[in-house]
Amino acid sequence: MERLEQQMQFILELDKQKKIGRQTYLADASRKEGDAEHAWHMAIMAFLLADYANEKIDVLKTIKMILLHDVVEIDAGDTYAYDVKGNQTKKDREQKAADRIYGMLPEDQKEECRALWEEFEAMESPEAKFANTLDKVQPALLNHASKGRSWKEHGVKKSQIMERNVNTHQGSEVLWDYVKAIIEENTKNGNIAE
Amino acid sequence: MERLEQQMQFILELDKQKKIGRQTYLADASRKEGDAEHAWHMAIMAFLLADYANEKIDVLKTIKMILLHDVVEIDAGDTYAYDVKGNQTKKDREQKAADRIYGMLPEDQKEECRALWEEFEAMESPEAKFANTLDKVQPALLNHASKGRSWKEHGVKKSQIMERNVNTHQGSEVLWDYVKAIIEENTKNGNIAE
Repeated sequence: MERLEQQMQFILELDKQKKIGRQTYLADASRKEGDAEHAWHMAIMAFLLADYANEKIDVLKTIKMILLHDVVEIDAGDTYAYDVKGNQTKKDREQKAADRIYGMLPEDQKEECRALWEEFEAMESPEAKFANTLDKVQPALLNHASKGRSWKEHGVKKSQIMERNVNTHQGSEVLWDYVKAIIEENTKNGNIAE
Repeated sequence: MERLEQQMQFILELDKQKKIGRQTYLADASRKEGDAEHAWHMAIMAFLLADYANEKIDVLKTIKMILLHDVVEIDAGDTYAYDVKGNQTKKDREQKAADRIYGMLPEDQKEECRALWEEFEAMESPEAKFANTLDKVQPALLNHASKGRSWKEHGVKKSQIMERNVNTHQGSEVLWDYVKAIIEENTKNGNIAE
């Protein structure tokens, strides 16, 4: 049962991801959400909103990718979207984390899971494009619901958000239109700085 | 865009599930976990451990079922496994919750998601059996890692755990054996009462 034991150790290691915090507040602004909650929310969005993907997607593959997309943050931490310094070292920190964490799995699953993460990061396949789009839509939804609290706390500018979302349309034009409308409304009401 | 708006309202409603607490502690016993974290953890287990299912399962269907299996707790709350009174009214409270929450979705997705939840509860299909097994394996793993903290706090007896797990073998004999070993070890060391 070495295989099962390796899998269980990996699964137990993932538990740490529940403690990685994000900058996004829950819809009711009562607290910030965690990585695992974010991934759960995105995974449900993936199958409910799959019809809006620009290209046909394999929903199971997309969901696996989403469930695992932030696992490297167990070692590398969550790098806030608008943290310039942190984003310079992000890639290197995350590669080391992927080596260690995915390395806990049996060889075949290590290959599969690591490849899914690399694919997500490369943003080239239909699944990766759609997963990356959801990774932007989900916090936009929550930021809007929580009256822009995270945007306001960080003094985020519209130009920063637009730059950050330069690829969001690639996964789904429909969902990008939805996010754009949220950005416009929150720029108008001052939650996002001009 | 009425369809998209209905879907987004449902997705936003699900955010509340992040605030539903469970009795299980994280592996490091630092705090208890929430419903969304539990579902995320189980969903990853579903595809990593699918080969141990007694019967062949549709992994995507199993994952959808898992991601949504506790949604009714937004209205009905989490009923602790060993809360006798709470479990008497659980079914009725959860049916009402399912009517309201799944009722927010467009008709086709309302039917699909509600049916997945009913299937999970009925524990008859291979997917529902396996999902229910994971629903027991995941907290057993965490309880073991956290040195039985939740079991000890509630003074849970081995006989109660065995009764609660009477169907766990139906989804996977291999995983039930794994859980049984955990129960035995924690009974021996006193984390679970004889």
